[in-house]
Amino acid sequence: MKKIISIATSILIICGSLNAQDNGMLVRISEIEIHADSLVSYKAILKEEAEASVRLEPGVILIFPMYQKSDSTQIRILEIYASKEAYQLHIKSPHFLQYKTTTLSMVKSLKLIDMTAIDLQTMEKIFVKKTVKK
Amino acid sequence: MKKIISIATSILIICGSLNAQDNGMLVRISEIEIHADSLVSYKAILKEEAEASVRLEPGVILIFPMYQKSDSTQIRILEIYASKEAYQLHIKSPHFLQYKTTTLSMVKSLKLIDMTAIDLQTMEKIFVKKTVKK
Repeated sequence: MKKIISIATSILIICGSLNAQDNGMLVRISEIEIHADSLVSYKAILKEEAEASVRLEPGVILIFPMYQKSDSTQIRILEIYASKEAYQLHIKSPHFLQYKTTTLSMVKSLKLIDMTAIDLQTMEKIFVKKTVKK
Repeated sequence: MKKIISIATSILIICGSLNAQDNGMLVRISEIEIHADSLVSYKAILKEEAEASVRLEPGVILIFPMYQKSDSTQIRILEIYASKEAYQLHIKSPHFLQYKTTTLSMVKSLKLIDMTAIDLQTMEKIFVKKTVKK
């Protein structure tokens, strides 16, 4: 009986650690504050860059830019890359470099917060691009 | 010539305001801090609730729970509802009520931050459920 409980515990631990794994993905929330006088230009450039990234890069699962309703200078971007390599390719892409150089002076502060997704299995039911490797 | 400029300006203003509209959707980032000793239970309950919401509720475009890699007590959830009505239905659903009552004592702090999506057109290319009404 003890052996069964021990095996069951091991299975639960393995499942738990699998669940916490990122499957090689990179999930991030970027918190960006923009100078108020640059807001219109910044949003247009960011929109263009995010759209191009999702359309042109197979490894970009999602770049989803938003701003706070109560303070539109507070930008938040949910970013999901299929792997660290996909992220490295992304930051060398012409559209990202164009975004980075043109918006540099518009950015007041920038925090990149690495995240872990709680449910990898459900991700492929909510995102168009597949995130779970079979 | 003045008339053409005036018309062009009007079109730009209309496009800009359309772009800023939420299309009736509700986009939110929930920032939740959990008591460290409740973390395992909390994540399991949240995972179940998010999965059920996306699966059972047509108006739930996305509930995507994450935690910070540097501090796993810091939970972030990106939530997108098709409309305010869809959100009202969600908070009355059995799975949400079950989540709310069982996790109440586990939550240290909770901030609901309403957001505006910067690019509505690209949303339907990244999320499985359609967000842009035709």
